[in-house]
Amino acid sequence: MAGNSFGKLFSITTYGESHGPALGGVIDGCPPGIELDMDAIQNEMNRRKPGQSAIVTQRKEPDSVKFHSGIFEGKTTGTPIGFVIENTNQKSHDYSHIKDSYRPSHADYTYDKKYGTRDYRGGGRSSARETACRVVAGAIAKQVLKGIEIYAYVSGVGTMKLDKPYSELDLTKIESNIVRCPDQEMATKMEQYIKEVRSKGDTVGGIISCVVKNVPAGLGEPVFDKLHADLGKAMLSINAVKGFEYGSGFHGSTMYGSDHNDAFNTDGSTKTNNSGGIQGGISNGMDIYFNVAFKPVATLIQKYETIDKKGEIVEMQGKGRHDPCVVPRAVPIVEAMAALVLADFYLINKIYS
Amino acid sequence: MAGNSFGKLFSITTYGESHGPALGGVIDGCPPGIELDMDAIQNEMNRRKPGQSAIVTQRKEPDSVKFHSGIFEGKTTGTPIGFVIENTNQKSHDYSHIKDSYRPSHADYTYDKKYGTRDYRGGGRSSARETACRVVAGAIAKQVLKGIEIYAYVSGVGTMKLDKPYSELDLTKIESNIVRCPDQEMATKMEQYIKEVRSKGDTVGGIISCVVKNVPAGLGEPVFDKLHADLGKAMLSINAVKGFEYGSGFHGSTMYGSDHNDAFNTDGSTKTNNSGGIQGGISNGMDIYFNVAFKPVATLIQKYETIDKKGEIVEMQGKGRHDPCVVPRAVPIVEAMAALVLADFYLINKIYS
Amino acid sequence: MAGNSFGKLFSITTYGESHGPALGGVIDGCPPGIELDMDAIQNEMNRRKPGQSAIVTQRKEPDSVKFHSGIFEGKTTGTPIGFVIENTNQKSHDYSHIKDSYRPSHADYTYDKKYGTRDYRGGGRSSARETACRVVAGAIAKQVLKGIEIYAYVSGVGTMKLDKPYSELDLTKIESNIVRCPDQEMATKMEQYIKEVRSKGDTVGGIISCVVKNVPAGLGEPVFDKLHADLGKAMLSINAVKGFEYGSGFHGSTMYGSDHNDAFNTDGSTKTNNSGGIQGGISNGMDIYFNVAFKPVATLIQKYETIDKKGEIVEMQGKGRHDPCVVPRAVPIVEAMAALVLADFYLINKIYS
Amino acid sequence: MAGNSFGKLFSITTYGESHGPALGGVIDGCPPGIELDMDAIQNEMNRRKPGQSAIVTQRKEPDSVKFHSGIFEGKTTGTPIGFVIENTNQKSHDYSHIKDSYRPSHADYTYDKKYGTRDYRGGGRSSARETACRVVAGAIAKQVLKGIEIYAYVSGVGTMKLDKPYSELDLTKIESNIVRCPDQEMATKMEQYIKEVRSKGDTVGGIISCVVKNVPAGLGEPVFDKLHADLGKAMLSINAVKGFEYGSGFHGSTMYGSDHNDAFNTDGSTKTNNSGGIQGGISNGMDIYFNVAFKPVATLIQKYETIDKKGEIVEMQGKGRHDPCVVPRAVPIVEAMAALVLADFYLINKIYS
Repeated sequence: MAGNSFGKLFSITTYGESHGPALGGVIDGCPPGIELDMDAIQNEMNRRKPGQSAIVTQRKEPDSVKFHSGIFEGKTTGTPIGFVIENTNQKSHDYSHIKDSYRPSHADYTYDKKYGTRDYRGGGRSSARETACRVVAGAIAKQVLKGIEIYAYVSGVGTMKLDKPYSELDLTKIESNIVRCPDQEMATKMEQYIKEVRSKGDTVGGIISCVVKNVPAGLGEPVFDKLHADLGKAMLSINAVKGFEYGSGFHGSTMYGSDHNDAFNTDGSTKTNNSGGIQGGISNGMDIYFNVAFKPVATLIQKYETIDKKGEIVEMQGKGRHDPCVVPRAVPIVEAMAALVLADFYLINKIYS
Repeated sequence: MAGNSFGKLFSITTYGESHGPALGGVIDGCPPGIELDMDAIQNEMNRRKPGQSAIVTQRKEPDSVKFHSGIFEGKTTGTPIGFVIENTNQKSHDYSHIKDSYRPSHADYTYDKKYGTRDYRGGGRSSARETACRVVAGAIAKQVLKGIEIYAYVSGVGTMKLDKPYSELDLTKIESNIVRCPDQEMATKMEQYIKEVRSKGDTVGGIISCVVKNVPAGLGEPVFDKLHADLGKAMLSINAVKGFEYGSGFHGSTMYGSDHNDAFNTDGSTKTNNSGGIQGGISNGMDIYFNVAFKPVATLIQKYETIDKKGEIVEMQGKGRHDPCVVPRAVPIVEAMAALVLADFYLINKIYS
Repeated sequence: MAGNSFGKLFSITTYGESHGPALGGVIDGCPPGIELDMDAIQNEMNRRKPGQSAIVTQRKEPDSVKFHSGIFEGKTTGTPIGFVIENTNQKSHDYSHIKDSYRPSHADYTYDKKYGTRDYRGGGRSSARETACRVVAGAIAKQVLKGIEIYAYVSGVGTMKLDKPYSELDLTKIESNIVRCPDQEMATKMEQYIKEVRSKGDTVGGIISCVVKNVPAGLGEPVFDKLHADLGKAMLSINAVKGFEYGSGFHGSTMYGSDHNDAFNTDGSTKTNNSGGIQGGISNGMDIYFNVAFKPVATLIQKYETIDKKGEIVEMQGKGRHDPCVVPRAVPIVEAMAALVLADFYLINKIYS
Repeated sequence: MAGNSFGKLFSITTYGESHGPALGGVIDGCPPGIELDMDAIQNEMNRRKPGQSAIVTQRKEPDSVKFHSGIFEGKTTGTPIGFVIENTNQKSHDYSHIKDSYRPSHADYTYDKKYGTRDYRGGGRSSARETACRVVAGAIAKQVLKGIEIYAYVSGVGTMKLDKPYSELDLTKIESNIVRCPDQEMATKMEQYIKEVRSKGDTVGGIISCVVKNVPAGLGEPVFDKLHADLGKAMLSINAVKGFEYGSGFHGSTMYGSDHNDAFNTDGSTKTNNSGGIQGGISNGMDIYFNVAFKPVATLIQKYETIDKKGEIVEMQGKGRHDPCVVPRAVPIVEAMAALVLADFYLINKIYS
């Protein structure tokens, strides 16, 4: 209810602030008997963690996860999986400069308006550090979804767009560069661009595309819990996300029905896939694909004026170790949230078996 | 769980197929003591109903709603509001042509794959007729949200786009034309365009924009139930929707942080509103605005080939009374879903009072 | 949230007041492909309906149910099942005598305190008439639970107790008398007793026992949603229920562990069944059995003093057609709620398959 | 869904096995701005912890709780409160004797049947150690419920019953003896009795009574989420509980309506309180009171025969440090669960404000 749980049968509840002692969560509903690949989980954590490359925040956090329950002799037991990620990089910073001030386009103002208080250290609960817990849960969800393949990648940085459809990309190359763009030529340009943006103390937005292969037909629960509706909510719940589209997306709204309809092959597959693998809110067995738009990070390394709690103007100076562009690190988060949605529907769909 | 409920404190559960005896639903959690304006509810129904104008389906349905409970002496009682909308236009059609066939880009195939069966008459549960129940509930939610104003309008039909920001539009003019576009000049062009598309037996997609004014700061429940995440899910759950963006949206992903950040005025309002009235998943008191992309209706009045259950190719002929473009009738549905999300968060937010 | 839904995967949401136009509900999550036995459903309704025998209220209601959706060509489709039960016996009574008064041990006072208003006709939403919807849903749940047998019966009326364990009773005889006590000798005495109580304008409480046979091992979701915890909640949610015990129950609290423990047979069954078929909150395959205590009906056909809204003393006269003892008609309600709980856990348990 | 969450607005999700590294949980929905009394929380933990007195298990666990989030500068922030309780007493025991065997009336058999596996060390997830997390959450819920007083106490041990109504007891004396029975004379007898039972290697059941004072009228959400129904579920979800009754309870089922009805005073209070402070599922402002029946602990310090996974008979020897009677340590658990239910309804009730 109070918003920190996601999923119904395969559910996650998370907690934790940026600069508290630890973040953590509980995964409830994970089926028993799954032999967890712990390296795979840590690998997902590493893809998200700060300090991993030259184009992300240089803050250092090992982001190692400790499991407290639900795993016995290497396998899931069907009982809830509790886990903790310690915040090792809690410097006893001086936060007095942001304590009573509202940084523009952050959640400082709205948290104060809603709760009447906030943990102002590093953004508190509104920090994207919270997504570390999602990555843990998503890494386990991926292991529930044996055979289903989820590939997220950077397809846009600022005005730079990778215009190729995913079918023309080699999705095994996503991790071959630090931008996480499978087209190496474009990746090089994007990397250069991000560095330039950072050198100005500025930030820039971007787009992550995601493809999911080998999804069985039948996932999704109309009329409200349509597969793409829950995917959309999952993506929009990630920090900085401003938009979601699947299949033909916004472009589809400009098309004629005679061009948009996906004609069937005799095996039930379709000749085109404007539907994005989902029809009537239920997967049809074709590839699912969608785009997620991220705004530029709000923290600039610049001087600016803003207001404090009393409504008085104060001058602030962005500092610290922030991402100039969030998308390279958000790739595993998009995959994690996709995995969580799919695992949930995958389990719910067993009603029908 | 099985997907036909929406909302937590202000919740709706719906049922009903296109050609069954009736649709209906239950609104649970409506606060007591609200004097319901029944004309306002029927008016919303009329905005959605078929046959209302020259550019929508010419099927005739009165779409009148009967309330069974939860209202006493004209006021809500706090107990669940049950309602029924009869299907009066159930012709004893011959549906044999679609019984065993899968229409392209409909939900025929996926419903059969998921459930092993389907009510094939008029699309059954996957029919957009289902949204009539959402409009009833949304019309009541609007009355819970006294003072909050929700304006949805058509901003795109096919490649025709209304490029003005909402601040330059007269939102009181939305109902002054049958397209529901507040710019009369553009509306005239769009109407003409839709008629042309229909004359070819084709269909076309479109975009609905929505603005919500006077939202108090504080609505939304991070980290998963962010206000825009639930708005996104709500919109994506509407038939034919392919995308959602709020505030700066997909365009925001191309911007620099220095351009995108919304500087504060001393009263807590912001000079720009790229945030779309939501920061960190919580409303900040500024206008909320978002866009919803609709694909073209899948039913064409044309001959086409498709497959049947056995995977054999069959020839079909689209016929009947279908919308050439769904957006004019979807305007009240977008408003209804927005109202449902806001009413839910409005009630949840009372925890903090 | 607002309390009118029950169940997670097999869920029911109900609405309706005693004297409104109709009651109804939505069953969501019923698996597709079940050929519904409509006579069996109406038969359950008849077991609950008023006017069925000489020892229940003589009010006449046909209590026939109309299904609006979710059933096609005689089978469930997997989409929500909407249903309506009309209130045909809505006399234009004069309710002015109870409009502003609070009847003792009714819900008049608490509804007014909570909601600030109430539909005072016949108890409104707090009327046991609401349970008709539970019986409809339970009758369908029974059909989901093929092979599982649920037997509720009257084991106590006032101080009269049927002391035999269920294993010594012929459970096929429950419907052979109007008390619904499978021991005919006791049934005759109870019937006589109820008639005497009624002749004095008084009422009396009672106990319903319930046995469930052929439950597979594995149902129940610890640690909170233990099978017996949800059964307990289900029973306690029925009007007039004051207590619930399962297996050895309250008597078990007086026993030694050495007497209470259920030793295993080599096939996994147990020699005794103090556990009541549930261990650690999960069914073990043995018979589940439990008792439900009902208070005496609050409406007496007597004169009495009470207070009105202003706190002034008023004299009232109970009148009308009320049950002298609620348990004979509550038997199908207990079965219905048991079926709802079991169907829900039965579907959830498919996660583990 | 998978059963490890409780509550809707004030919710708790728990995890942890008896002999894993730690237990823990997440409290979501706690209102912001509450200055937490940490000593009061630890005090509740101490009331539950093993080794606290001569009549409970002599196992030693400090049961100290670490909070990871949701508390800042001593006050709740409205964000989720994550907490961890380390298992410090994890001896590297030899569990081979129970690994493949099913102890009678434990959850060994049912966990294996449901999940196909189990953490067999100390009962794993089915251990009452899990309730430590409930006590943490309940201690915080108590602090949300300022002014509401919750008194649980031991009213029965085996056949020894405290027959006085709570109004004749001095509830401030509950903690004055190790049995937690406010009647010192009875407490002395019960203590003696428990020691005798233990000396035989046996165990015995008991009853906990609970009184809640100063509950405002209006809590509870009919028709399913009645206040007593959720209290019942809460209590029945505690390990070893076999029954629940409130107000007149099972005895009420033997009464006449003319004796049972609670006549009003002119201030809305009632002359008697057979209703137990709840009418129609909603609190009426009178004291709430209920009884909870606990079975005898299943672990005996005796030799016995049972079966193993293969269905073969094995001889086992109960050993270790077990409670001869669970009720003295279960008193704070009953209070905690009552507090959780009340806090949840207290917050939900704000809809109506």
